[in-house]
Amino acid sequence: MTKRFQVVGIGNALVDILCHVDDAFLEEIDVIKGVMQLVDRDRANALYERMGPSREISGGSAANTIAGIAALGGRTAYVGKVKDDQFGRIFAHDLRAQGAVYETPKASAGTAEETGRCMVLVTPDGERTMNTYLGVSEHLCPDDIDEAMMADAEWIYLEGYRFDGPESHEAFDKAIRAAKRAGGKVSLTLSDPFCVDRHRAAFLAMIRRDVDLMFCNRDEILSLYETDSLDEALARGGEDLDLLVVTDSDKGAYVIERGAFTHVPTRPARVVDATGAGDLFAAGFLWGITHGHGSANAARMGNIAASEIIGHVGARPEADLRRLFAEAGLI
Amino acid sequence: MTKRFQVVGIGNALVDILCHVDDAFLEEIDVIKGVMQLVDRDRANALYERMGPSREISGGSAANTIAGIAALGGRTAYVGKVKDDQFGRIFAHDLRAQGAVYETPKASAGTAEETGRCMVLVTPDGERTMNTYLGVSEHLCPDDIDEAMMADAEWIYLEGYRFDGPESHEAFDKAIRAAKRAGGKVSLTLSDPFCVDRHRAAFLAMIRRDVDLMFCNRDEILSLYETDSLDEALARGGEDLDLLVVTDSDKGAYVIERGAFTHVPTRPARVVDATGAGDLFAAGFLWGITHGHGSANAARMGNIAASEIIGHVGARPEADLRRLFAEAGLI
Repeated sequence: MTKRFQVVGIGNALVDILCHVDDAFLEEIDVIKGVMQLVDRDRANALYERMGPSREISGGSAANTIAGIAALGGRTAYVGKVKDDQFGRIFAHDLRAQGAVYETPKASAGTAEETGRCMVLVTPDGERTMNTYLGVSEHLCPDDIDEAMMADAEWIYLEGYRFDGPESHEAFDKAIRAAKRAGGKVSLTLSDPFCVDRHRAAFLAMIRRDVDLMFCNRDEILSLYETDSLDEALARGGEDLDLLVVTDSDKGAYVIERGAFTHVPTRPARVVDATGAGDLFAAGFLWGITHGHGSANAARMGNIAASEIIGHVGARPEADLRRLFAEAGLI
Repeated sequence: MTKRFQVVGIGNALVDILCHVDDAFLEEIDVIKGVMQLVDRDRANALYERMGPSREISGGSAANTIAGIAALGGRTAYVGKVKDDQFGRIFAHDLRAQGAVYETPKASAGTAEETGRCMVLVTPDGERTMNTYLGVSEHLCPDDIDEAMMADAEWIYLEGYRFDGPESHEAFDKAIRAAKRAGGKVSLTLSDPFCVDRHRAAFLAMIRRDVDLMFCNRDEILSLYETDSLDEALARGGEDLDLLVVTDSDKGAYVIERGAFTHVPTRPARVVDATGAGDLFAAGFLWGITHGHGSANAARMGNIAASEIIGHVGARPEADLRRLFAEAGLI
């Protein structure tokens, strides 16, 4: 029987606040370039005070992936928590307007925390450095997981970032059980090398027990297996997973499917803003495998979707991704 | 004595919600292409529901102008009303981060109305069609005008759109008196042909009595003088004003200074999003005349600033406008 959803994503529901900065600014505010750092509301407000004029675009890693799959015409839903405030309404609107189902109960207007946001600092080289105030997205809990929705998903897609929340492990577990009972599969993105470092044991346990497909980049898999050798990390990942996809920026992606290795190179792209590259890679890949394509072609679709997203500011697609796939002869 | 501010702008404080649409969508929602229409909150919410994924960038016509002058290094302040909500904090941040002074008291969090917003629908030809929910920006009143600030301005810059508010005429009047008493000058932008039509008599009275410099486009001046003849409108405007600047899209600008006519053509530019073209023209022009340049060169600066803004989404400058002026040999 056809399931209602091809992919249901679960993650941090955030609005991105994007600002162009120079490298000196990153040093001034004492942040590590290229990674995501969690900040509390006071630090978030202090950083925002120091940032230049910005723009706001809906974000959130798994939400970007779901928006990308929806933009391709895939059947998707998203689970993540916002508050009933202006940022929360922006986030919900943009996801639904893209065609995704989004029904997670909103935190009430009386909650002290606000909808989460990610201050994305884009340097002239296109690299992005993120400071995230999780706000109410941190409080995603098992009650927010609709088991019927999970059971109606071919794939669920879990955002590693959400490991930074006490009740979210349980929420993930509830989603995994409901999906698997109904014959669904589980995909995971590692999200960030420091996030991997914070939760290595939990990640590894989940990967070995439940995950059918894992997305990560080079830094993340090196962090996961605590090694400097990509070959070693790929070999160990290939043992732990049926399907492993590792992106390596302009080198493209490595796919290991049941032990078989494929390198799928990508074309050089002008990097305006790297925000969302990994998220949209996952979107292209998941759309591919849920539409009858093999993993190598799915990785090519991932590369194309990632190239589109880094060519403009913001992590939600602007161009017609299906047309880009067609131009590349993939569909 | 040097005044603290070169330009103080007064207008509707709005956050823009920008969305790409096709022409059929404008017909579906029954709006007139290329103009600004006022909508109440219910209509605003209903329209937003139907719009696709969007992005948010601070806007407001006079605020865009002030941000542009500030980006050029000019000494500026802005007066316009937001609420203490998330959109209001975005608006205030972006203006201050650009270097403008912005101290208008915020409407309290308990107010029923929210910070105003403008839903900007951008068609493939780059034209923008605007639906504005004024929210608390409508309630700008004489108490919000700091006479000391107006007295400390070489120029005040009044946004015609703000004529759509009962107490704002009085607020404008208070600002004009305070500025003029201290030897300051008054500039006005007509904003929109339909706005002109709503308030023609009030505009004409103010123009003839108080305005030293008026900005408008072709449609607006035709509406003001209720004629189809641009020559006639320019002649009449030249009689009513010491300095009149009329933009005519890709034909550039016409400057009439004490009866002397100059046509300042512009170079063809790729139109991605026309939002803010007039606002940034005014920014370039006002920066020019407050920095020792004659009106013809100031109009050239206006053309360059307008060309920059239509080359990307959003009405706040992204490129270094001073560098563009220098490349054109103007500074």
